[in-house]
This record gives sequence, C-alpha cells and structure tokens, in this order.
Amino acid sequence: MTPETALQLLDYAAVAVFAVTGALVASRSQLDVVGFIFIACLTATGGGTTRDAILDRTVFWVADPVILAVATAAAILVFFTAHLLESRYRALLWIDAFALAAAVPAGVAAAQASGQDWPIVIVMGMVTGCLGGLMRDVVCNEVPLVLKQGELYVTCAFAGAGTAVLAGVAGAPEMGALAACALVVLVLRAGSLAFGWRLPVYRTRPPQPDQPKRGP
Amino acid sequence: MTPETALQLLDYAAVAVFAVTGALVASRSQLDVVGFIFIACLTATGGGTTRDAILDRTVFWVADPVILAVATAAAILVFFTAHLLESRYRALLWIDAFALAAAVPAGVAAAQASGQDWPIVIVMGMVTGCLGGLMRDVVCNEVPLVLKQGELYVTCAFAGAGTAVLAGVAGAPEMGALAACALVVLVLRAGSLAFGWRLPVYRTRPPQPDQPKRGP
Amino acid sequence: MTPETALQLLDYAAVAVFAVTGALVASRSQLDVVGFIFIACLTATGGGTTRDAILDRTVFWVADPVILAVATAAAILVFFTAHLLESRYRALLWIDAFALAAAVPAGVAAAQASGQDWPIVIVMGMVTGCLGGLMRDVVCNEVPLVLKQGELYVTCAFAGAGTAVLAGVAGAPEMGALAACALVVLVLRAGSLAFGWRLPVYRTRPPQPDQPKRGP
Repeated sequence: MTPETALQLLDYAAVAVFAVTGALVASRSQLDVVGFIFIACLTATGGGTTRDAILDRTVFWVADPVILAVATAAAILVFFTAHLLESRYRALLWIDAFALAAAVPAGVAAAQASGQDWPIVIVMGMVTGCLGGLMRDVVCNEVPLVLKQGELYVTCAFAGAGTAVLAGVAGAPEMGALAACALVVLVLRAGSLAFGWRLPVYRTRPPQPDQPKRGP
Repeated sequence: MTPETALQLLDYAAVAVFAVTGALVASRSQLDVVGFIFIACLTATGGGTTRDAILDRTVFWVADPVILAVATAAAILVFFTAHLLESRYRALLWIDAFALAAAVPAGVAAAQASGQDWPIVIVMGMVTGCLGGLMRDVVCNEVPLVLKQGELYVTCAFAGAGTAVLAGVAGAPEMGALAACALVVLVLRAGSLAFGWRLPVYRTRPPQPDQPKRGP
Repeated sequence: MTPETALQLLDYAAVAVFAVTGALVASRSQLDVVGFIFIACLTATGGGTTRDAILDRTVFWVADPVILAVATAAAILVFFTAHLLESRYRALLWIDAFALAAAVPAGVAAAQASGQDWPIVIVMGMVTGCLGGLMRDVVCNEVPLVLKQGELYVTCAFAGAGTAVLAGVAGAPEMGALAACALVVLVLRAGSLAFGWRLPVYRTRPPQPDQPKRGP
C-alpha cells in the first residue's frame, strides 16, 4: 500500500465514521432519509471543507466525489439500523471518538502536503477533527461535544496533532507520525469517556441567573 | 433575453425572496431595521457564498454588489410592511419555497459554469438552496426548516438539482433544464406545505430523556 | 511607526480583545483551559477568516501565526483571572465594544488593500467586526449580541465602516480614516450600552405562541 493510498483510506474512514455520527444525531431529531444524508454529509465534510477553504486547496470532496457516496451510504445504513442500538447517544460518543482519531491525522497530513508550518499544521488537525461535529451539534441543537464540561475533546485533537509534529521533528516517517497522532487522540478520548480523564475546568462561578443563556 | 440575463435575473430573484424570509425572521425576533438588513443579507447570500468559496469562484456579491442592494431593499420593505401579514410564519414558509425554487437552479447553473461533474452540480444546487436559510434559522434560534419533521425540504432541492442534471443528459437546452429544476422544487415543496407530502421519517425512538438536547 | 506596523497592531489588538470576550463566554460555560483557547481563537479569527475566504486573500492567521499565540495568551490570562471580575457579563459587553472598534477598521483596511469598491469595503468591515462574536454566541448558546433587541451593534459597524469610506472620499489619510472609523464604532456602541441609544425596533407583534422558537 503506497502512502497515497493509505492517506486516502484515512480520509474515507474519517468521512464514513463521522457520517455515522451525523446520521445518529439525525435519528435523535427523527428526520427522513434525506435529512440523515444531509446531516451526515455536513458532519463528514464540514471540518475538511473549512480546512481546504482556509488553506486555499481544492475542497477534498470536489476533487473526489466518492467521499459523498461514502457519507451517503453510511447515512442510509444508519437509517435502517439505528433502532438496533441499545443507546444511540452512547454509541454516538464512541463512534465520534474513532472519527476524531481518523480526522485529526487526515487534517495534519493535508496541511503538511500544503507545506504549512507547524502551528498551522496543528490548527488544521484540530479544525478537521472538531468542526464537522461542531456544525452537526449546532445545527441539530445538541450540546456540542466540543463544549461538554469535564470531558477532553479539543484537547485530544491538540495533543494528537502535536504528537504528529513532534514525531516528524524527531525524524519519524510520515505514516508513523500519523499513526501516533491517531493513537494519542483515541487513547485520550477513550480515557475521558471510560475513566473520566479531564483537565481542571473553570468552576468558580456559573453564569448569574439574571443573564441567562439562550432559550426557546 | 440572453441566457446570461436570464441567469442574472434568477440570481436576483433568489436573493430578493430569501432576503424577504430573513427579514420576516428578524421581525419575529423584533430587531431594528439594520438587524433586518443583516439577517436578510445573511440569508440571501449565505448559500451562494458557501458555494463560491467551495468552488473557488469569485463570490457572487463581490463580483456584483447590486445583489446587496437588492437584499437591503427587500429587508427595508419588509420592515415597514410585515405587520400587514395575517401570519408571518405561514408567509415565511411559502416565500421560502419560492426562494428555494429560485436558488437551487441558480446553484446548479453556477456549478455547471465552473465545469463541475454531476455529483458536485447536484450538491451545489442543494448548498445554494439550503444553507442560507439554515444560517438564518440557526442564528435566530428558529427550528431550521431543513430539519422540520415530516416535511420535504432538502429532498426538494435534491430532486430539483437531479432533474436539471438528467434534463441536461437528455439533451435539453440549459434554460429548459433550469426551468424544470425550479418547477420540481416548487411543486414538491408546495405539495409538502399544502398536502403534507413527506418521506417516511425515522420514528422508532425519540431521544431518551436522560440525554436531553440543548436548552437555555 | 509605519502604516504597516500600525495596521498590524490594529489586527493584534482586535484579536486579543475578541479572544478575551471568547474566553469570558467560555467561563460562563465552565470549560477547561483548552476550551477557553478554542472559543477564544474562534471568536478572534472567525470574522477575519470569513473575510479572507470571501476576498480570496491568504487567511491572516495562516500568513502570521503569531495571531494564534496572541489569542491563546489572552485566553489563558482570562482562565486565571475571570473570577476577579464583579460581573463577567457586563465586562464581556464592554470589552466586546472595544474589540468591535478595533476589528471594523481592520476589516476595512484589509478590503481596501484588496482594491475593493466601497460597498464591499463596508460589508467587510461589518463581517470582520460582527461574525467572530456571532460564531462565539451561536456555538456557546448565548443570545447573539448582534441580535439583542434595543441595542446598536451591527449599526455601529455599519456607521464606522461608512465613516472610513466617506473620510477616504473626502481625502483623509488612511490612518485618519481608520481612526475615525474606530471612534464612531466605539462611541455608538458605548452610547448604546451606557445610555440606551437605539434605533426603533420592529415591535408590532411578537411571534405567535403556536409557532414557538427553538427550545431544548
């Protein structure tokens, strides 16, 4: 398998798995099958599209529309099977962890292919990993996973992208650096979901009741 | 009337009608006139701007700022006349249907002018038609029309854009294909609003109460 | 100080002050330090990134990653000091006013540097000033400042950007026009916050209770 093939498989994996999470959120909103496909494609392509627009690259699914077929197939599969899950929300959290672990290295690889410096490489790993899910959650009025109190999420993306950069500086081959990136993201996120790993949060004071957040 | 003129009129029509829907939503949020203009311009240009950023075209209202004047004029008109409507929400739904029927063919035409293949042409019709209204609804905290249970919306955009592609393959002239596209979008969306046409939705289970969606 | 240096300082100032507002919103959502940095960077770069994508310029923080370091430093500072504020929401409103007054002229200057006509210059001042805060508020489920009833916000950005264009037409030097822009934005926004300056809002009818806005 050439590195190009491996990177393309990584892209497809991230797209398919994020599409599944989008379709699961669509099932919580009780949409029809086209709604499933719409949210799945938004989730699967949102992060990478933002990355490509920022880096002025050809958007990845315009260059390779098979991406859209992958996301559509994943959405249709979920439409017919979501009822088999014991807890869709629990499944969503774990599948999203795998999607994050595939999307962050995909973003890192794309930024490195554009010849970006390390700060932009790290940010593009985070953008690719986090923004699709953020769009999914904002559009469907879910609490964004990115913002959940007492869980690691953006931190996982940051640590993974940083690992890829450091591994590259240390002379690791590209595929090894990307594998290390995916592993760090997955271990941190899984540890947060399974064992409650977290950073200290700002707890001093919640918002005052006379300045409420947005309601219905 | 040359095809170029016809396409430009289609663009202006989509912008004006979407701007009216944005201003109606602004009236539901009781904004001032500048707020009406802001939401109207966001709604009218959001889909096309996303399309042009993805296709790396010059953004349509940067190329032709008259677009902004059209949206502004529509917003001011609504600011002074919205109180005449019996039901602003009902009007919003129907005017939005016409906007969708103008924006989808405009997106299809723009993607074809960029020389895109059919999958991207269909997606760009959907992006141009659906994303401006989605931004309007998310920013103003309305239930996104795209996500309303038991209504056709994204499906109309998909069917219309697909019709344009099929008509082109069948040898129809461009203006005919775009007219068929607009007609399919409008008939499906009107049928959904008037007669409740719909696709089967995912109804097996609503979200469990211990995993609530986002509140105030 | 050369004009280039002055413009770069203006950019840094807008980024730092918007990052502080993002971090204050993160404190209201009780996030961890990486969440503070994420929301701070989104707020600080959201408007300018949209502007650069629309104008097809190199995104400003890709060209100069120091921007990201400035926003990160501001977020960390707020993480450790936000509890010292009497009212974080009141502080947020006022600091956001200064951010708006720095970001609007930064957007105007960037559009003028791209050789845009006056309508696009004005819109880019508004986009740069308003969209970062709008993204912050939508993602964190706050009532968008842009949409608050009975307050000037988008109006301030519009008046400031218009002032810069008029001053330029009247022959003012660039730095003078940008200073006038910042002053107009700040005075209008401060007057709105301190003295309740406002435009007449659309008050005829609130939305009808049978068409509620989006809830939990």
